[in-house]
Amino acid sequence: MPNMYDSAYELEKSIRNSMEFKELKESYEKVIGNPETNKLFTEFRDTQMGLQEKQMKGEDIDEAEIEEARKVVEQVQQNELISNLIEKEQRLSLLINDINRIVTKPLEELYNFENGQ
Amino acid sequence: MPNMYDSAYELEKSIRNSMEFKELKESYEKVIGNPETNKLFTEFRDTQMGLQEKQMKGEDIDEAEIEEARKVVEQVQQNELISNLIEKEQRLSLLINDINRIVTKPLEELYNFENGQ
Ligand SMILES: [Ca+2]
Ligand SMILES: [Ca+2]
Repeated sequence: MPNMYDSAYELEKSIRNSMEFKELKESYEKVIGNPETNKLFTEFRDTQMGLQEKQMKGEDIDEAEIEEARKVVEQVQQNELISNLIEKEQRLSLLINDINRIVTKPLEELYNFENGQ
Repeated sequence: MPNMYDSAYELEKSIRNSMEFKELKESYEKVIGNPETNKLFTEFRDTQMGLQEKQMKGEDIDEAEIEEARKVVEQVQQNELISNLIEKEQRLSLLINDINRIVTKPLEELYNFENGQ
């Protein structure tokens, strides 16, 4: 029986060698390699993170910000390199969620047992 | 090269078979097996979660609540079964943090590369 660290490093290698991760990396490199696309992508990320932060802090988001975000999303949707990157990110993200669910199962079972008492 | 899912299930098994997880499970069972201790532990968890929730929502925590929490913590510290459980939880939690750091490394590297541009 391998120990936890050995297994974790195995999983890390499997992720790194997966088709999904390689495709994501490739998509990133294409976005970064195109200055105009990279600029738009950075703007998109900054806008999304700004809105997310406000939401988490319970701050109001005004009309102008929503309009600005809408415009950036529209541009992003028309950009093939970024659309492709977002698609690859979502695909890997689903896999990572699955993996997290698998790996946290022992603890989850323990807590459920405890709460079921 | 095993695929991600195989590796994730391997890691799950390693966690389940680890000394740290087995000891945590044992500690839980001892707490649950003692009605008085279980009641105090539930009270402790509920108090901690209540405070955490208020903190996250940015709500005020009044003197009475702090005093109540302090009393529960004091009782918990004097309870050997619960102290032992908390210690085991902290030990496993450190390991899980390490494991998360290892497993998320490929993605972290990708984003750092991207941000470094
Ligand atoms: Ca960037
Ligand atoms: Ca309980």
